[in-house]
Amino acid sequence: MNRQCRLTARPTGVAQAEHFEIVDGPVVDPADGEIVVRNHYLSVEPAMRGWIADAGNYAAPVALGSVMRSLAAGEVIASRHPDYAVGDRVTGWFGWQQVATVSADAVVRRVTETDLPLSASLGILGINGVTALLALTRVGEPVAGETVVVSTAAGSVGSAVGQIAGILGCRAVGIAGGPDKVRDCLETFGFGAALDYRQGPIDAALRTACPDGVDVYFDNVSGPISDAVHRQLATGARVVVCGTAAIADWSDWPNGPRVERHLLVRRARMQGFVIFDHMGAYEGAVARLADWIREGRLVYREDILDGIEACPDALAGLYRGENRGKRLIAL
Amino acid sequence: MNRQCRLTARPTGVAQAEHFEIVDGPVVDPADGEIVVRNHYLSVEPAMRGWIADAGNYAAPVALGSVMRSLAAGEVIASRHPDYAVGDRVTGWFGWQQVATVSADAVVRRVTETDLPLSASLGILGINGVTALLALTRVGEPVAGETVVVSTAAGSVGSAVGQIAGILGCRAVGIAGGPDKVRDCLETFGFGAALDYRQGPIDAALRTACPDGVDVYFDNVSGPISDAVHRQLATGARVVVCGTAAIADWSDWPNGPRVERHLLVRRARMQGFVIFDHMGAYEGAVARLADWIREGRLVYREDILDGIEACPDALAGLYRGENRGKRLIAL
Repeated sequence: MNRQCRLTARPTGVAQAEHFEIVDGPVVDPADGEIVVRNHYLSVEPAMRGWIADAGNYAAPVALGSVMRSLAAGEVIASRHPDYAVGDRVTGWFGWQQVATVSADAVVRRVTETDLPLSASLGILGINGVTALLALTRVGEPVAGETVVVSTAAGSVGSAVGQIAGILGCRAVGIAGGPDKVRDCLETFGFGAALDYRQGPIDAALRTACPDGVDVYFDNVSGPISDAVHRQLATGARVVVCGTAAIADWSDWPNGPRVERHLLVRRARMQGFVIFDHMGAYEGAVARLADWIREGRLVYREDILDGIEACPDALAGLYRGENRGKRLIAL
Repeated sequence: MNRQCRLTARPTGVAQAEHFEIVDGPVVDPADGEIVVRNHYLSVEPAMRGWIADAGNYAAPVALGSVMRSLAAGEVIASRHPDYAVGDRVTGWFGWQQVATVSADAVVRRVTETDLPLSASLGILGINGVTALLALTRVGEPVAGETVVVSTAAGSVGSAVGQIAGILGCRAVGIAGGPDKVRDCLETFGFGAALDYRQGPIDAALRTACPDGVDVYFDNVSGPISDAVHRQLATGARVVVCGTAAIADWSDWPNGPRVERHLLVRRARMQGFVIFDHMGAYEGAVARLADWIREGRLVYREDILDGIEACPDALAGLYRGENRGKRLIAL
């Protein structure tokens, strides 16, 4: 039996529990070139909002009635592809289901860090950590001594960005929501300063935390938090646009303060980053991150829900801000 | 006698005639290291709005009661600096006045293109042409075969951008205000297409003119015109933020559609360009532009007003859109 979580209705905004259903499907026998993966961990990520939205995006929307698109980590339990054998640990586009019968193309990578937990392959050693490293270095281009500001700083991407900025010799300033996450930033992830946006406008605190301005802004949110950071950009600043979690819905396109003047006066840059453009650098990034974990220089936090029944509300909960660390579902 | 145009009041928005006065000052004898320049042409440029504004900017505001800051082109009529001799033609920060006694530091460059008109040294062979070339190539990074959209396309910067884009093998699409400027774009400056924003929203016409999207947007305006272009960015697009002429006043900061989602979905980039960061490349750029002019591949239009008395209203007229081509004042 193969219990699945399927998308049944298309929300405006963030999908809630009622937009999904749990159903029992069959385990499909693999055709030639296919493998069968027993999923151990399913990923839950902010970008799913975009995958679900029926609007222009960087991937086709998830079809109604189909298994929710998701990265997952698991073990090959049957293979009709010469590159994969039973027992191989893999991550890939296996969806929110217990067992996936997929073309080998669905595999993102074979998990070779067998000394590290498999769950890490979906977070710090997966799309989150790799995004943090590649977006920060390739778009943010931080230079030792600079100030790097990060939004959703206690999250799976943000916490990695802050730590990597530190490893690269920069001073990291985090922005997070609530005292627990601020404490995580300071005590767990080593940010030099951390601001709580739930305490009100952050302009003054940001000015104090970044007396020479913001050299790199790693933006996971957009919205008023980012507007405040834009006002503090240093000359030559780089803004990495990695996510827009603060904007619940782009179908009714929101307004905000125009950025052109900031970019012109500060000779600054804003640039979008999507990991799928950088897959050639993926393995090298994972290896670098894994070494930092082994050296104790990079830590991560996970928020693991239990069982496929946790799927329908998992994304909505992410947008309610209830998780601390990378949200996963253990099967 | 040295007739001058001085700034006497600080406007909100664009300075009008009443914010200046014409006065007769003395011709000051040069001190050691100084030169005296007889100005033949004074420059009028959109950026003057920013130089006048008493707000955060990339240069200190022009002091009330002082000669209006301006580039000018003229001839050395007295010199107490070893590098300059009477008769040398120079451009520099000589201000809106007939005769400038200045430190040699005020000279931007010696005009060596003696086969070309001196007035060109303030436009196509000055800050406008050099900005067009360096901002387009260094920030826009156009690749042959791409589509380059330019706002204020009939203006001194925009018309050069369109022609240079063509020389580099790109297809240039201009946006300009009114049928005369659209005709200039098509007939004089060789744009592949030109849109008149005064005819109403440009979205549909832009989609038709750029069926594969906009690879490079050279933005001189900000505002609704730019918002429409942002909606048509191609994957990997580059937006050169070179000016914000459509925004009359940034002291009451305007809102507009948020750009983050465009940048993320299209993996696009917006970056500000200010010529003062690129002075090391200035001479090489002038030489390249001059060659294109001599080869007949680069043409330019000038809008020359007569006499220092034309100064006070010259900037306001620029913002009224009354000029065609680079606005200068001949003395």
